[in-house]
Amino acid sequence: MSDALWNEPKRHSWPSLHCNFKDVFSVIETTIEDACFLAIDGEFTGLEVGSGSVASFDTPEDRYHKVRQASCDFLLVQFGLCAFKYNKETKQYEARPFNFYLFPRPYMRGAPDCRFLCQSSSLDFLASQGFDFNKVFREGISYLRQTDESYIRETINIKHQACNQFSSPAFFSPDGNEPTGSKGPIVITDEHKEFIEGILKSVSDFMENKESETLELPKCNGFQRKLIYQVVRQKFTSGIHLESKTGEKKQRYIVVSKVKSEDELKKKEEEKQKNEMQELDDAIGFTKVINMISKSGKLVIGHNMFLDLLHTLHQFCAPLPDDYEEFKSLTNCIFPKILDTKLMASTNPFKEQIISTALGDLHNIVSAKPFSKAEVVMPEDFAQYQINENNLHEAGYDAYITGRCFISMANYLGSFHKPPMSRVAPTSPLVEPFINKLFMMRILDIPYMNLAGKDCSIHVGWINDTSAYVTLQRKEESKKVIKSLNKKGALHRVISYEQSKSSESKHNAENGTRKRQHQQSSDPEPPQKKQKPLNANAPPFVSRSITPPVSDAPDPPDTTTEKPNENKMFEEPTSW
Amino acid sequence: MSDALWNEPKRHSWPSLHCNFKDVFSVIETTIEDACFLAIDGEFTGLEVGSGSVASFDTPEDRYHKVRQASCDFLLVQFGLCAFKYNKETKQYEARPFNFYLFPRPYMRGAPDCRFLCQSSSLDFLASQGFDFNKVFREGISYLRQTDESYIRETINIKHQACNQFSSPAFFSPDGNEPTGSKGPIVITDEHKEFIEGILKSVSDFMENKESETLELPKCNGFQRKLIYQVVRQKFTSGIHLESKTGEKKQRYIVVSKVKSEDELKKKEEEKQKNEMQELDDAIGFTKVINMISKSGKLVIGHNMFLDLLHTLHQFCAPLPDDYEEFKSLTNCIFPKILDTKLMASTNPFKEQIISTALGDLHNIVSAKPFSKAEVVMPEDFAQYQINENNLHEAGYDAYITGRCFISMANYLGSFHKPPMSRVAPTSPLVEPFINKLFMMRILDIPYMNLAGKDCSIHVGWINDTSAYVTLQRKEESKKVIKSLNKKGALHRVISYEQSKSSESKHNAENGTRKRQHQQSSDPEPPQKKQKPLNANAPPFVSRSITPPVSDAPDPPDTTTEKPNENKMFEEPTSW
Repeated sequence: MSDALWNEPKRHSWPSLHCNFKDVFSVIETTIEDACFLAIDGEFTGLEVGSGSVASFDTPEDRYHKVRQASCDFLLVQFGLCAFKYNKETKQYEARPFNFYLFPRPYMRGAPDCRFLCQSSSLDFLASQGFDFNKVFREGISYLRQTDESYIRETINIKHQACNQFSSPAFFSPDGNEPTGSKGPIVITDEHKEFIEGILKSVSDFMENKESETLELPKCNGFQRKLIYQVVRQKFTSGIHLESKTGEKKQRYIVVSKVKSEDELKKKEEEKQKNEMQELDDAIGFTKVINMISKSGKLVIGHNMFLDLLHTLHQFCAPLPDDYEEFKSLTNCIFPKILDTKLMASTNPFKEQIISTALGDLHNIVSAKPFSKAEVVMPEDFAQYQINENNLHEAGYDAYITGRCFISMANYLGSFHKPPMSRVAPTSPLVEPFINKLFMMRILDIPYMNLAGKDCSIHVGWINDTSAYVTLQRKEESKKVIKSLNKKGALHRVISYEQSKSSESKHNAENGTRKRQHQQSSDPEPPQKKQKPLNANAPPFVSRSITPPVSDAPDPPDTTTEKPNENKMFEEPTSW
Repeated sequence: MSDALWNEPKRHSWPSLHCNFKDVFSVIETTIEDACFLAIDGEFTGLEVGSGSVASFDTPEDRYHKVRQASCDFLLVQFGLCAFKYNKETKQYEARPFNFYLFPRPYMRGAPDCRFLCQSSSLDFLASQGFDFNKVFREGISYLRQTDESYIRETINIKHQACNQFSSPAFFSPDGNEPTGSKGPIVITDEHKEFIEGILKSVSDFMENKESETLELPKCNGFQRKLIYQVVRQKFTSGIHLESKTGEKKQRYIVVSKVKSEDELKKKEEEKQKNEMQELDDAIGFTKVINMISKSGKLVIGHNMFLDLLHTLHQFCAPLPDDYEEFKSLTNCIFPKILDTKLMASTNPFKEQIISTALGDLHNIVSAKPFSKAEVVMPEDFAQYQINENNLHEAGYDAYITGRCFISMANYLGSFHKPPMSRVAPTSPLVEPFINKLFMMRILDIPYMNLAGKDCSIHVGWINDTSAYVTLQRKEESKKVIKSLNKKGALHRVISYEQSKSSESKHNAENGTRKRQHQQSSDPEPPQKKQKPLNANAPPFVSRSITPPVSDAPDPPDTTTEKPNENKMFEEPTSW
């Protein structure tokens, strides 16, 4: 813990992408192309749907299903991307950080009108970090999943085709959904007569006035606009073009313009159609960045990145699958190489050196001996991030720091190489064991979620403070394990499930059945159910999880070892 | 429609309450006390949970259940209150508007950590109106429902009592939940030894240093704080006080201070308890304003206020009941007198004069003949609202305009009085027929939701474009109605349900059963089920709803007569 924690917050400027997204798109493109690895981070509107849903004895699959729900309900509102490029001449990394503010703006008819959940404590936390909500809701960059994009594109195409089949677009309703003829004209009731007569008069005046080219009609509602389209087109069969527009304050109005020929009318209609396609392209927005990252196939790193990954897939790629194995396939397909720095830091040979794997702490630790501080510069045309804990929880900064942690840890692996290497590239075989494994918060007995194959599936189900059921992957190993664990002088005793059951029955026969029922309910699943195939490629560090908790307590989770507590508040959120 | 619509938006300053809530609380109190009626309006994070859930043939009870869901899920983030006071000397009303930005900040352990839904199109709409989201999430006023407040107060009291029973608060865990003794001290593992030794050294140095009075320990996590409390209290049994505090960026840390005597320690603890109670009082925040409005028993008016009412009850008073009649009781209990200006404007004698009941349109209409423009001034110490459509959708402005509409409409009722009255007070019997009736959006056949008694329950279930089942409240009236509606020359024909069934069976026998199944599914509820007791006090304007739609089309809803369309976007939202 450094004294810097109590410094006055200094806020630095950095590339904050919202309204300038289109302008810098080509810079993002080049940056991703040139990078040797990419670091990402997200900020969300909430973390937990219900209370206490995440349990210490979840299997990775259980955890997927629980976190999936949160990822579908809450929104990723800020995406941090930091691209790292190695400069062989200076022997330094160059970091290029970006902050994207995101908002699923329903830009047109047919685009999804997203409903998303917010958690008060999460928004309050973001607010306390100086997060600018107006940048999200007023200027946030749009995005569209591939499936939504295809659907909308098809809808627009059908509309345009239908429109082009007729000689004149004047035969169409303002919304282009169907020829107005199909239902017959709307009868104009008394209450609208005065309004419509006023409109007709101003359109007539406009058509006779040779000086003006366009006329904006007053703001009015959908029904009134339908009436206007109908009566104006009845009266002026040619030389006129109508188009509905949306004002700055979302008010809708009709713009009337003069056209000299059928050709000009067609041209106007073509222009309108082109604009609609451009609008769709704008709406895809940030999704293009994710597509570029995916297409690059480059190593994507994150810190405690499970939630970031799920949100990213769900918001920009495809709805998260129900099936856990399908989720793994989807991940491998979109991000073929990912690395979680929290998992790396919790694993040998780092585990012993790193007393806290919280991002800020980790960065402090790996910037000092026995590690070496990452040598990273930021190109001049990028704003300069200073290392300062007050910047934490800004997605771009967190991505930058995550990248720095990775560089230090990867280089440290080089010290075990013969001869020692001072720089270990992200593509090095030394980094390989850490690829495609995700850290699982508060899961004590299973070391990681394995995206590259089957999960390790040792299961420890606690019965009370001192006893637990332990399930192995391979039943046939049980005798060997019992023998090896029951060494002389051990503080624990391991017995078989059969033995435990028979001694329990005996115990219950003496004490009545009440307690037994209680014990059973604390672990209702028979251990047999938990047997799953072993991952043959399990790296050496799985040992972390099979050490009995009594003799070697697992690392405390990021910020607290207390059990998840539904009433707990104002603790540092653990995964921001 | 006036040309003012195309003016550049002019934004005016007005009392916008968030960070200055405590300062102006007494002003709000006096304002409510002095008012002769109050107008309210709300802005929400969303309107519709699912698509197409609100149907034209909902009964008021159906509608309650549907809108209740939205009110429970979305959040009211801006509450507008405008208090109107009549000055007998100047014969003018004085208007005092307030805008409250609201946010359910989870201020302490035990306070609810609210999850709420947002609808992209609603946030986008608010953004386009210049809504400041940072004012909500960074500075929004807290609130607590009575039940939540009681629960938290009790929790705090129990904690304080338990604390006071022991001679020294040093026996308590930092969170005050239970004496640390109950589970025995935590074993300090190797990884925490270095950190804890550093802390003990700095506390020792501090205790020996006579010049400093308090010491802030470094930011650390919950587990580390627990360890610090434990070891510091083991080492320093007296003369020391520890307290956990939260920094500006939500980081938690411990403050160590010296105390000279057991008395001083007690005093410190008392002060801490007093502060906790003050914090709770701050957290109740805006709920106090609603309580004052409720206690005043004054007429509360709103425009299309069903959603505002439901949100207000649910957020600040009590969870909305499952039971519809209980909802009515709750409403009557909290707001004994309410009036909906949209319902008033849709009812005789206003209905014929008012072609659009959208708030801005209504205000324009009732500000001109045959109505009289409301004479309203704003006291100097209040910001001055100018009448400008660009201000619409700011809750305080909408409340102000709603109040103006009410004044004009109420005064218009005076013209029917003998002798005519130029001013009709909100307490006048002329206003009475409009009290406690709510406008129902897009319900064509039932005039209003009646909070003062049973709902009118004529039910029209359309079978196809030209036929409908009509259910009366009183079965015995049916013959009279059939006879009176089947007059010579009528364009429609009314037959009994029995007749329709027998002719249908005959028809089906000839055409197969397919069509019949389809027809049944469009109105699956047998008409008998809909029979409900008649409201004997139904005012004359129920006639609006029993006019057959064919001969007298009902008013188009606010902005469009199109059917609710799940794909529809960028239309003016109908209830903002």
